[in-house]
Parts: sequence; C-alpha cells; structure tokens
Amino acid sequence: MIKKTGLSLALLFVFTAFAPKEEGMFPLSELDRIDLKKAGLMIPIEQIYNPNGTSLVQALVRVGGCTGSFVSDKGLIITNHHCAFSAVAAASDPEHDYLTNGFIAKNRELEIRTSIKARITESYRDVSAEVLKGTSPDDPAGRMEKIAANIEALEKEEKEQHPELLIEVSEMLQGQSYTLFRYRELNDIRLVYVPPRSVGEFGGESDNWVWPRHTGDFSFMRAYVGKDGQPAEYSEDNIPYTPKRYLPINPAGVKENDFVFILGYPGRTYRNQPSQFLTYQQDYLLPYISRWFDYQIRQMEELGKGDKELEIAFASRIKRLANTAKNFKGKMQGLQRTDIVQQRKHEDEEMQMMIAADPKLNAQYGKLFPEIDRIYTEKLKTASRDLWLGQVFGSSGLMYAAGYVGDAQDTWKNSEKGAKNEFLEKLKSNAGNFARSYGIAHPELEKKIIKALLMDGVRLPEDQRPAVLELFASAKAPEESINKFVDEAWEKSVFTNRAEVLKMMEEKPEKLMKLDDPFIQIASGLWEQLKAYQLAEKARQDELSILLPQMVQVRQMYKQSNFLPDANSTLRFTYGYIRGYYPVDAEYHEPFTHIKGILQKASSEGDYFLEDYLQTLLGTEDPMSVVCFLYNLDTTGGNSGSPILDAHGNLVGVNFDRAYTATINDFAWNEEYSRSIGVDIRYVLLVMKKLGNADHLVSELIVSR
Amino acid sequence: MIKKTGLSLALLFVFTAFAPKEEGMFPLSELDRIDLKKAGLMIPIEQIYNPNGTSLVQALVRVGGCTGSFVSDKGLIITNHHCAFSAVAAASDPEHDYLTNGFIAKNRELEIRTSIKARITESYRDVSAEVLKGTSPDDPAGRMEKIAANIEALEKEEKEQHPELLIEVSEMLQGQSYTLFRYRELNDIRLVYVPPRSVGEFGGESDNWVWPRHTGDFSFMRAYVGKDGQPAEYSEDNIPYTPKRYLPINPAGVKENDFVFILGYPGRTYRNQPSQFLTYQQDYLLPYISRWFDYQIRQMEELGKGDKELEIAFASRIKRLANTAKNFKGKMQGLQRTDIVQQRKHEDEEMQMMIAADPKLNAQYGKLFPEIDRIYTEKLKTASRDLWLGQVFGSSGLMYAAGYVGDAQDTWKNSEKGAKNEFLEKLKSNAGNFARSYGIAHPELEKKIIKALLMDGVRLPEDQRPAVLELFASAKAPEESINKFVDEAWEKSVFTNRAEVLKMMEEKPEKLMKLDDPFIQIASGLWEQLKAYQLAEKARQDELSILLPQMVQVRQMYKQSNFLPDANSTLRFTYGYIRGYYPVDAEYHEPFTHIKGILQKASSEGDYFLEDYLQTLLGTEDPMSVVCFLYNLDTTGGNSGSPILDAHGNLVGVNFDRAYTATINDFAWNEEYSRSIGVDIRYVLLVMKKLGNADHLVSELIVSR
Repeated sequence: MIKKTGLSLALLFVFTAFAPKEEGMFPLSELDRIDLKKAGLMIPIEQIYNPNGTSLVQALVRVGGCTGSFVSDKGLIITNHHCAFSAVAAASDPEHDYLTNGFIAKNRELEIRTSIKARITESYRDVSAEVLKGTSPDDPAGRMEKIAANIEALEKEEKEQHPELLIEVSEMLQGQSYTLFRYRELNDIRLVYVPPRSVGEFGGESDNWVWPRHTGDFSFMRAYVGKDGQPAEYSEDNIPYTPKRYLPINPAGVKENDFVFILGYPGRTYRNQPSQFLTYQQDYLLPYISRWFDYQIRQMEELGKGDKELEIAFASRIKRLANTAKNFKGKMQGLQRTDIVQQRKHEDEEMQMMIAADPKLNAQYGKLFPEIDRIYTEKLKTASRDLWLGQVFGSSGLMYAAGYVGDAQDTWKNSEKGAKNEFLEKLKSNAGNFARSYGIAHPELEKKIIKALLMDGVRLPEDQRPAVLELFASAKAPEESINKFVDEAWEKSVFTNRAEVLKMMEEKPEKLMKLDDPFIQIASGLWEQLKAYQLAEKARQDELSILLPQMVQVRQMYKQSNFLPDANSTLRFTYGYIRGYYPVDAEYHEPFTHIKGILQKASSEGDYFLEDYLQTLLGTEDPMSVVCFLYNLDTTGGNSGSPILDAHGNLVGVNFDRAYTATINDFAWNEEYSRSIGVDIRYVLLVMKKLGNADHLVSELIVSR
Repeated sequence: MIKKTGLSLALLFVFTAFAPKEEGMFPLSELDRIDLKKAGLMIPIEQIYNPNGTSLVQALVRVGGCTGSFVSDKGLIITNHHCAFSAVAAASDPEHDYLTNGFIAKNRELEIRTSIKARITESYRDVSAEVLKGTSPDDPAGRMEKIAANIEALEKEEKEQHPELLIEVSEMLQGQSYTLFRYRELNDIRLVYVPPRSVGEFGGESDNWVWPRHTGDFSFMRAYVGKDGQPAEYSEDNIPYTPKRYLPINPAGVKENDFVFILGYPGRTYRNQPSQFLTYQQDYLLPYISRWFDYQIRQMEELGKGDKELEIAFASRIKRLANTAKNFKGKMQGLQRTDIVQQRKHEDEEMQMMIAADPKLNAQYGKLFPEIDRIYTEKLKTASRDLWLGQVFGSSGLMYAAGYVGDAQDTWKNSEKGAKNEFLEKLKSNAGNFARSYGIAHPELEKKIIKALLMDGVRLPEDQRPAVLELFASAKAPEESINKFVDEAWEKSVFTNRAEVLKMMEEKPEKLMKLDDPFIQIASGLWEQLKAYQLAEKARQDELSILLPQMVQVRQMYKQSNFLPDANSTLRFTYGYIRGYYPVDAEYHEPFTHIKGILQKASSEGDYFLEDYLQTLLGTEDPMSVVCFLYNLDTTGGNSGSPILDAHGNLVGVNFDRAYTATINDFAWNEEYSRSIGVDIRYVLLVMKKLGNADHLVSELIVSR
C-alpha cells in the first residue's frame, strides 16, 4: 500500500531473500560462491574440483541411477546395496543365493561380471548460446523443437570429435542454460562384495524414509578395462581400471557437528517453480495419489492374507506404491509443518513488486506472473478429475484396454472405408504396446480397483464429474449400483480374458472394432476426456516452457547470489554438518545409531529379519558401535550411493536415504527438517571384517589410504 | 555344579538381589526404609505420612477408580479429565455440551452435582493375625473361605464402632498380610472446571500410552458436606468440605532431574509372581488377545468405513479393545527388549538354591517350586485352547447364547421329570443375566467374528483342537467349509433373532430345550470343554492360593530389604526424578513437551482435533511453554489423577498415563523404560487463565499456597 522508491525496495529484497548458506546443491562451477574454509573444509577447493587438473570429481562414478566412488587404485567402487540389487539378483540362483546370503569374491578371479555400466565425468562446458541459437519466445512449440534439434546436433558433433566418450547436454536452467558433459563409460563392472540382504536391506519398507536407521546399505564393485587401459567389453584378460583419483577412507569416522560434504548426481528438484506448483502438489497430487495408493495396498494386503502365493505376487507392486505413498505423505506433513508454500507465495509477490517498481522490468516481465497464474487457475479447475482420469487407466489394466479399444472403435467408425483397413493395420502393429499396458493383476483385486475408481469418480465435484458416471451418481445407492454394474459387466465382458483380446488384436482387430462391451461403454467416454485433458495440458506446458525460464531469470535477479538451479542429474556438491533433529516436539533424533539398535529391532521374520548367526556375531561387538549417521546436507533421489567426505576429503560413509521429514527436499531445503542418512564407514568395515570374512578387501581399502 | 557353603550362597543372594532403590510402590508404613532426604526430599517424612497426626495423606482422595487431591481449604479437588468424563457426559445435553466445550462454574452456586463419591483415608492398621486366625495350609479351599469369613467379621465389627466410616480390609501380601483401612466417604461432589474435550482428551486413542504427549488431562471438582461438617447427601445448604490438609501448588513447576513423588492408589501388579506366570503372559495371553482384538478392530473399521452410523456404533468397543491391545503389545515389546523374564527365572532358581542349601528351609519349602511348576505345566498344556474358548463365548454374543442353551439342554435332558420343571424355572429367573451376555453387535460383524473364531480353532495344535471342529479341520478347504457352515447356519438359526430367543427364555424355555439349532451343535461341545477348563483352573488357583503366599515368604527372605508387596489399590508412595529416556536406539524422548507440539499435532478432525479458536489462543502463547512431563516413578492403573509433588511437597502436576514401554510396569519396574506421564501445573494454570476464563479458580489455588 505504501509506495516506496525502487532503491529501498531493492534493498528490502536483498535482505528478505537471504537464505542460510548451508542450503544448496551447488554445480561445481559455483563452488567459489561459498566460503568453504570458514564452513570447515580443511583442503583447498581445487582438490575437490579442478577443471584443469585432477580432483575428487575424478573419483566419482555414476552406476545405473546411483552414484558411486572409487576407493582404491585397483578400480574398487563403493556404492549402495540397493544399487547393486538387480545385479546380485541376476547373479544368484537357488544354489548360489547371493541376494540372501551376501557375496564375497575371495580373489579377483571370483568377481562376478554384471550388466552394470559405470560413467565417469571427464569434463564439461557451457553450451547455452549454441543450444538457444535461432529460437524465438514468440513461438513456444517451435522453440522447444529448435532447442531439441540444436542439442542433437551439438551432441553429434562432439561425439565425432570424441568417439570414445559419452556426450550429454543437460538443461541447467529451464530454457536458459545448458551444459555439455563428456563422460567416459566403463562396461566391465564386476561384483566384489555384497552383505547379506538382512544387513543390506535391514528394516525394509518399515524403515524406508525413516530415522533412526540401521541399514548396511553398501556394496563393492570393481571396474575393469582392456589391457590398453581403455574401456572394453567384459573379457577374462581385462585388468582393473586405474582411476585418476580414488577416495581414501577415514576408519575413525566423524562425530556430531563435524563438517562433511557430498559429491553426487541428485535427480530432480522443484525449487524454482512458482507457488501455484506447490499448491497443486499440496492440494491435489499428493493427497489424492497417496490416498489412492494406500487403498490399493490395503486391498492387496487383505487379499494376500493367508495366501502366500498371492502375497508374493503382490509384493513388488505393494513396495512400489508404498514407497511413493510414504514419500508423498512425508511431503504433505512437511508442507503442513513448514511455511514453504507461504514463503514461496511471499517470494512470488515480492518478485511481482520488484517488476512493478522498475519500468524496464515491467516492460519485459509485466505479464509474467499473471500469465502463470492464468495457466494454473485453468489447470486447477479440473485437477481432481484429471488426476482421477490418469488413475482410471493407470491403475486398472482392464479399464486401459477397454478405453483404448473404445477409442479405436470411434476412430474406426468415423473413417472412410480405405482408411478403416489402414487403421486396423496400425492397430495390429501396435499390439505390443497395447499388451504392455493391459494387465489384470488379479481378478478380485482388479474388480475392487475398478469399483473404487468409479466410486471416486462419483465423489468428484459435480461440475467435474464425467457424464458417463451420472448413471451411478443419480442412483439411490451409488456404491451398490457400481458394485452391481462391475460384477455383472465382469461376467459379460471379453476384457476379463486378456489372452483372447490380445489374440483378436493381433489377428482379427475388426472383431474388436464391432465389440459391444459394458466396460467400453464406461471407458471410452472417459478416454475421450483424458485425451482432451492431455491436449490442454500439453498446450499449458508449452506456454510454461516460455514463461518459467523468464521466471527463473527474475528469480536470479531477486535471489542474487543465493540463486541455485534445480537438480537435474548432473554432478553437484553439497556440504553441511553431522546433526540430529527434532521431527516433533520433545523427540530428539540423535545423529548416530548403534549396534544395540540392530539387536533391539532384530526379528525372526518380516522387515527386521536377521539370521540368528548374524545376531550372535553382532552380539559380541560393542553395542555402541556406530551403524548409520545423519546430516543436514541437501540431497535428493539420485544421491544414492554418494560418498560422504570429511573436512580432509576422506570417505566417512555412503549416502542412501533421507529422513521422513526430508522428503520435502524436492520443494525446499529446511535446516529444521532436512536430514539425509548414510551408512557409517565404521559399520562398513565391521560388517566386512566380522560378518563377511573380507579382510583382504579391508586391507585394500586401508592400504589405499 | 560347584557346591558352596550356605553362607557364601547367602552373601551371593544379597548381592544379586540388590535393586536400584528408585523402584517401588511403597506402603506408607515402609517409608522409613528409604533415605528420602538423600534422594532429594526437602521436608520431613512426617509431613508426608504421620499416623499420629495430619500429613499430606489427608489431602488425598479416591474418586471412582482414580486418585485426586485437595488443593484448597474449600474442598477443591484436582484429578484427571478422564476421571470426570462420565460425570461431565451425564451433566451435558445438546444445549449444554460441557463435554465438547468444557465447563466453568463462574461461582459456587453454579457448580454441578454429580453421582461421584470421594473417599479419604482416615487411618489403617495391620490385621493379618485376625484374618489368618483358624486357617490351615492343609485345606486350600477351606482356608480361602475362612479368610473371607474373618474379613467379613472384622469389617462388620469395625463398622459398628465407626458407623460414619467406610471399612475395608485389603490383602497386602497374598494370603499373608492384611490391613484394615478406615475411609471417610463424601457423597456431595460437584463439577467446578473441565477443559474442552479437545484439550482434556487431545491425542485420543492415537496418543494413548504414548510420549511425547500434549493432553490437558485434568479437571476440578469440589467436595461438600453438611453444615455440621459431616458427610451428607447433596443439599443446597451443604458447605464446602474443609480438608485436614490440602496441597499448595508450585506455579513455577519442576525441571529435568528434579526430585518428585506421588501418592496414590495403584491398582494391581504382578511382580511377586513366579516366572511361569510371565511365560504364560508372554507366550500365550498377550499375543493371542492382542492379535484377536486387532482382528476385531480391523473388521469394525472396515465395516464402519463410509457408514457414519456404524462407525459411531462401533466406536466405544473399538476404543476398549484398542486400549487393551495397545497395552498388551507394549508389554510384549517390553518383555522382548528387557530381560525381565530371564531375571525372574534367575531369581526363581536362586530361591530354589537358597532353599536347597538350608535344611530348615528345605523341610518347609522343598516342594514349593516343583509344585508351582507342575501346576503351570498343566495349565500351559492347553493354554492356547483355553484362551480361545474364553473368546468364543466372550467375543460372540450369539455363540454365548447357543452355548448356554446347548448346555441347558443337556442338563434338562438328563434330569428327572420333576427336576426338569424346576430347572426351567431356574432358567427363566436367570433370563436377565442371560440377556446381558447375549448381544449381536452387528450381523456382518458377528458373522465375521464367528468365522474367524472357528478358523482359529481349526488352527489350534492338533492335540488341543476340540473334536467338534474336526468336521472343518478335515475338510479340503477348512476356511471355505467354515464360511459355508456359518452362512447357512445364520439363515437357519433362531439365535440370530435375539428378541425371539429372549422371549422364549422368559415365557417358554421348554421350547428352547427342544431346539435343534446348527449353532448349538457347535457351541454346546465347546461350552462343555470351557466348563471343564474352568473347574480345572479353579482347582489350580486354589492350590496356588496356598503356594504363592509361601513363595512370597521365600521372596521376602531372598529380597530382604528390597522386597515390596504388589499393588492392591491401597495407598502407596513412589518417588524418583523428572527424566527423559530412549525408547529405541538414537531416539531420545525429552521429559517436557511444549505448546509448539500441540500446534504441530493440531488438526481439523480426528484424534488431534482442536477448535480453531483454541489454536489461535494457544498460538499467542510462548511456543516453549510446558504442557506435559515425564518421570521415572513407579505407577500403574489407579494412579490416574495422582498428585505429583516436588521436594517441598508442592503440587507440580497430575499423573495420567504411562509411556508405551512402561506398560511392563505391571511385571517389573525398569529404569530404562518405566516412565509415567503427567500434565504440568503450568499448563493447568495456562489453560484455566487463557482458555477457560477461570481466573477466580486460579486465585483460589494461588491464595491457597
């Protein structure tokens, strides 16, 4: 209300935008922005990152979606147990159950080949100007295509110059800044040591996103290259890769409040999105999806009770849904308990004030926030329905099939005769894709899911409710009417017989086109709405792809030196301290867990299963031996397996998870709640020495110090 | 294996039997055993307990099953919110919803009469010799009768001398020591102040047995007497009772590690039971009952989902079962994590060694432990079946009715003609009792419960499985066969029609006696087994009633000065310190909760519901204002409402619950886990002043200091 001069406003912004400097996933090129010496680092920054020489960065590897690091001059890599999981499963058979019992290669010849590839960052350079060449903000759709084409050309050109390297252009700031990364890929990666599953996965789903934690989530692999030192496919003649740098370990570990840092490849964050994005997450996406996933999990658990076969059949789906549901509920709790949304709204408002106060800015960005708001207002109008539509075809394979066929029927009916046959040919050729999305988990489960989805549809706000559901909504007892419909449709429908439908699709799609099926009656109308929504959403995303880069520019002016780009799976640095926290009032979570906690949790079954012999072995150790630890660093998915380094750059642990409250890291970092979890190097050594008979490997680590 | 002399063994016992002196619910007569001054008490013991004068004891009252205390010279009593709950509910109507909104009497005339009675301990004396007079250990059954008769006579005699007092003889040590208590009962107790339910019950079932806690579980009542100062029925002319003593409050509260003590009426503990008692609890009672109650809760929650009426109908049954199930699971966790069972076994063994080492003891107690073991061995043989039988008729009202009638049919059939009619008359006259145990919660629920019970029966160890279940057990798919049986029986049976059966019972029981009903076929065989079990159990209890007092004698010799009798609802003293604890590794629970925690938990629905206006009011207070606190005192059920007193005997809070891990207090006190929960006097005052407009009451408390 009170008019201020541009200057005083600008000063105000500098002040309010100040954020604690511990926040941040820093691109390595931005390290000079932080006073790391003052923060506690005892080595020169050049030892961490040195574009003109070797540095710790050369000890980093990307293995699958994870991060790993070299820990010896013989190409030994440490990463998480869960990052090696598939490879160990593939190497196991009933006689050699390495997954359950763990694996230790007594010598190099016994290391097991895998299909894992490891990627090392060789170098990178800014290519923003080249990527944006020839684009225009007046042509949203064309602009995205042009950018894609420029990237492709750049990558091709670079690849021709460096055929031995992997080339990848990453977007650092949406539509604005791009970096070309050169990676070296190693193809011969072998399993060296994996702890028993009961150690590496201790706590299972119960402890996922949970502190206090007692999981030995680590494993060792070794990278091999050809005799010439160059990347090569697996061969018996290959030799261990000699990394340019490897991490020395610090077997003494760290203590509370010690400085630590992490190098890794964090996946995706949403910190430079407008407040409306958070509103959408908080009010629509997170509550709906977590509730709906929870419902499905409950049904599967209920059906699986007392039926071992079904229980196993549902296990991986339950695990996948539970992981997301728990993450989403953590985020909701985090958003509720912090003022992140309020803060983002406040920032958006301040940015608008900043624009309004400066005629030049106003000319360029005056419409920016109103436009973003218009797009989101439109999106939120039908957000409940659209999320629901996505699940109708995403959660029920049968509904997907009925919707797909119903939609095809419409196209087919409305086609000319010649086009009809051509369409049928296209259908046939797409049978494989169709089959992939069309599954029936279990008849009882599928029926329950369809019933619940339809009932959820009836419960949608009246102005969003699809017309095809009126039939149920207007019934005296909608739920009963839905149950009756699904039960009867189930008896009549051909879609309950997947094999039959797939056969028709491949052999006689014209029969499918003439099918009169009760599920098609429901699904095809919904499919049409989903398509309409997807078109509208595509148009919104195209518009946002112009607006959000502009908003990021404004944010940069507004945040000044505190601005950091969102994570995008490229190499980042984050630092902070070993620190406990209060998840709730009066409940303090200390930063170290101990062997005694493993023995407290250990059970003869379930998530805390631990073999008797391991309980006995651990029982002979000091109960206060450290297992895992906690730190206020800024991590997210993709940081799995990242090395945790002390002030001297020595390895003190391996990052593998975040605390429940830190699921909000995707939206914002928060000193009060953002805590990540690593397995302590002391526990790694203890497990290898005492449980794993891996003394020779321990020697390789220690000698490599 | 190594023989030792009696002497060195005795020394060993003294050493191993040493327990930390903080343990204990001390009878007041035993206070001189503790060095309370050294422990931190700043007032003479005589101020707490003085058989020849006034002391803090005179400030104590028993209100219902709870403890309360006088806090002003005008008869003002402080106790728990949950202790006043029924009285507040009874005083409420839709227009005056005191339960929801709370109640404050603006002046004395507006205080609300209740049916609560308050009992004050006037004095007591040891009457063991009189109670045991004429009993003989050789006649177990007769001995119990003789004791009961002696007690009755004693109470009658004392009552004649003190007609104005309540007289009660309590067993202090099973079959060994008895105390006669003289109580004064006040009949005119009025409601003075009750906080809103969202404050007094904040956290509901979710926070029951849980720390960190934020419940304002307190209320105020006032005791009135006739104008002559003597107890009187309610009358407008009554005047506030002037207690001999009342507790001054300490509005500054306590801090971590401060000395505190509690006076109260703890209900029942099992610390002087043999190890076999704990084995029975751990391996049979606790797991079976908690699992079975959880099953019933799940079914009720499932049925209640989306059906508000059903949800409300099930609410109190769910609450009752959940309270027990949570307590039992807490006990199981406690027994698993501590070495209480091992310790008790060890003590039993040492006592046996002590007996064996001393010829005199051996002559008297040589057979004691083998006898106890024989009785428990027998009991455990069919414990699974017996617990199950109890639930068959305890969890299903329909099965109860069918079993009862089936049993009656057998008696009736086997009776002479004349006796037949007499039996029918007896049945009729017992119709009221029959009706009380015969209810059908809800048809769907009842069916599920019966099905689940029968399936549990089939799963019993084969040698315990009742013959009547063979029919199902031998079926190809037992579960399906049970479901089919129950569904079909449900259609045919008359017991699904409660009104009809009750009518028959009252009017034409001979028709019931000729009934051929599918549920009778199942239930009557089980009823017979239950009766046989009850007979055997009665015989075992009779034997134990001789043996356990002997064991207590041995325990007294063994424990020496550390021996304490089990709680028995009589007045006890316990002391200790304000102290946090680690429920699990790395998770420290601090001893104070704060207003900020209320606001973190507060929600617009469910267990953490808190009205917007209360959230707003609390939001204006210091977020670090104390709400509840934690201490390592030795409490159990019945200590609800007990005053928590500081070193100077000032009131600093009101006890109302225990932490989850302290559910094992019933079996043993443990410094690591035994923590009780009280509402802090500072929160009591804050709620009254800031939320309750009860300044005049606060003045009454403060003035009374």
